[in-house]
Amino acid sequence: MIEVYSWATPNGHKVHIMLEECGLPYKVIPVDIGAGEQFDPKFLEISPNNKIPAIVDPVGPDGQPISLFESGAILVYLAAKTGKFLPASDRGKFETLQWLMFQMGGVGPMLGQAHHFRIYAPQKIDYAIERYTNEAKRLYAVMDKRLAKSTYIAGPEYTIADIAIFPWLRSWKNQGVDWNDYPHLKGWFDEIAARPAVQRGVEVLTDRRKPLTGDKEREILFGAKQYERR
Amino acid sequence: MIEVYSWATPNGHKVHIMLEECGLPYKVIPVDIGAGEQFDPKFLEISPNNKIPAIVDPVGPDGQPISLFESGAILVYLAAKTGKFLPASDRGKFETLQWLMFQMGGVGPMLGQAHHFRIYAPQKIDYAIERYTNEAKRLYAVMDKRLAKSTYIAGPEYTIADIAIFPWLRSWKNQGVDWNDYPHLKGWFDEIAARPAVQRGVEVLTDRRKPLTGDKEREILFGAKQYERR
Ligand SMILES: N[C@@H](CCC(=O)N[C@@H](CS)C(=O)NCC(=O)O)C(=O)O
Ligand SMILES: N[C@@H](CCC(=O)N[C@@H](CS)C(=O)NCC(=O)O)C(=O)O
Repeated sequence: MIEVYSWATPNGHKVHIMLEECGLPYKVIPVDIGAGEQFDPKFLEISPNNKIPAIVDPVGPDGQPISLFESGAILVYLAAKTGKFLPASDRGKFETLQWLMFQMGGVGPMLGQAHHFRIYAPQKIDYAIERYTNEAKRLYAVMDKRLAKSTYIAGPEYTIADIAIFPWLRSWKNQGVDWNDYPHLKGWFDEIAARPAVQRGVEVLTDRRKPLTGDKEREILFGAKQYERR
Repeated sequence: MIEVYSWATPNGHKVHIMLEECGLPYKVIPVDIGAGEQFDPKFLEISPNNKIPAIVDPVGPDGQPISLFESGAILVYLAAKTGKFLPASDRGKFETLQWLMFQMGGVGPMLGQAHHFRIYAPQKIDYAIERYTNEAKRLYAVMDKRLAKSTYIAGPEYTIADIAIFPWLRSWKNQGVDWNDYPHLKGWFDEIAARPAVQRGVEVLTDRRKPLTGDKEREILFGAKQYERR
């Protein structure tokens, strides 16, 4: 059975949703990132960048076990394994990959910075809050414009690009955006939120989640000395 | 011939290097991001996220023209088209994709934030400078540790994951790192820097580059109203 090293965060949710959508059996291994479990040497062997999610599939493409980190790579892997949520044509595959990369390189990291400066940082820094709130609004506008003329983000099919973006927008309250400004994106969001597999996926590990705003969690996740742990 | 909409920045260099490495003929179309050309409606049709690089290949996988944005997707596309710089085995492909995603989701956006707060931002904000300098050091340490036991970042072969990371580390001076702390990464860096195709790739469009620190460029690239341009 596929093992998923994860936590109830947007990047974790992506993989939980994908596994639920594909109907693949999986076992979740919680990695409490507020308690520093991502720095455990055993976990670092699978995920050397000390981040969730990561997976171990006992039956990789060559029949041997394979481990993978980075949610975007895991989504492509699971899509290739199951033949699901990635278009059949090469053109469709590359167009999906481009929007998946847009999530990985833009939506994820930039909304993550918005969360940091708007919610988690111990001081309120106007310049940074404005910078990342504006970037959130810009990204929402890009997606809204796209969804005005496309049913799903990468084209007519629901794909791993939608699965990658959706969990990040669930935290819209922390990003300073107003849904009224993005009607096409909101319609897409509500449709995806209603999918049973999505509803199951976003519940995975939520019982284990604790607020990441305590002093100890802050020190672990955002502390100046973080990189010396390795 | 493949058309490359680009500028002399790390994300542009990735594609220029890949095209040089593959020996593919290409035509560069400069998009002056300091002058706001990324907001041109014609360019937005190809690159709706208003960023370089983007490509138009007159002969896509189905024989029809295809356009793609996001450097990571472009690298995978060119690797698939030429059969180069992506391992032949599925396992090798997924392992390369995971390190490419590490670049797209981590190295690129986070070193980009380090550049912003260390160099471009009009005010010096200690908290943000420390945050992103520490993240730069953490990422360099992850890569150094990996390259202590692997010839290239994704394994024994030189791949698109190396091509994606390299241009970002050329700007190490803007990231607050000390190469002495990362001997394995430095050895890898010097080897890649010596490749003739890489040397040609990083020169593309450099004659057009202007400093991005003028007031007008700042307003265009980092201005509060940026997202309203669309
Ligand atoms: N680009 C990575 C990002 C993963 C990521 O940022 N994971 C966070 C939780 S959402 C984490 O594990 N943080 C712990 C840490 O950085 O120490 C991916 O998409 O998988
Ligand atoms: N994730 C994107 C990032 C591209 C990117 O950030 N491009 C920058 C130059 S390196 C840009 O065009 N900036 C102009 C703007 O944001 O207005 C990729 O890898 O292609």
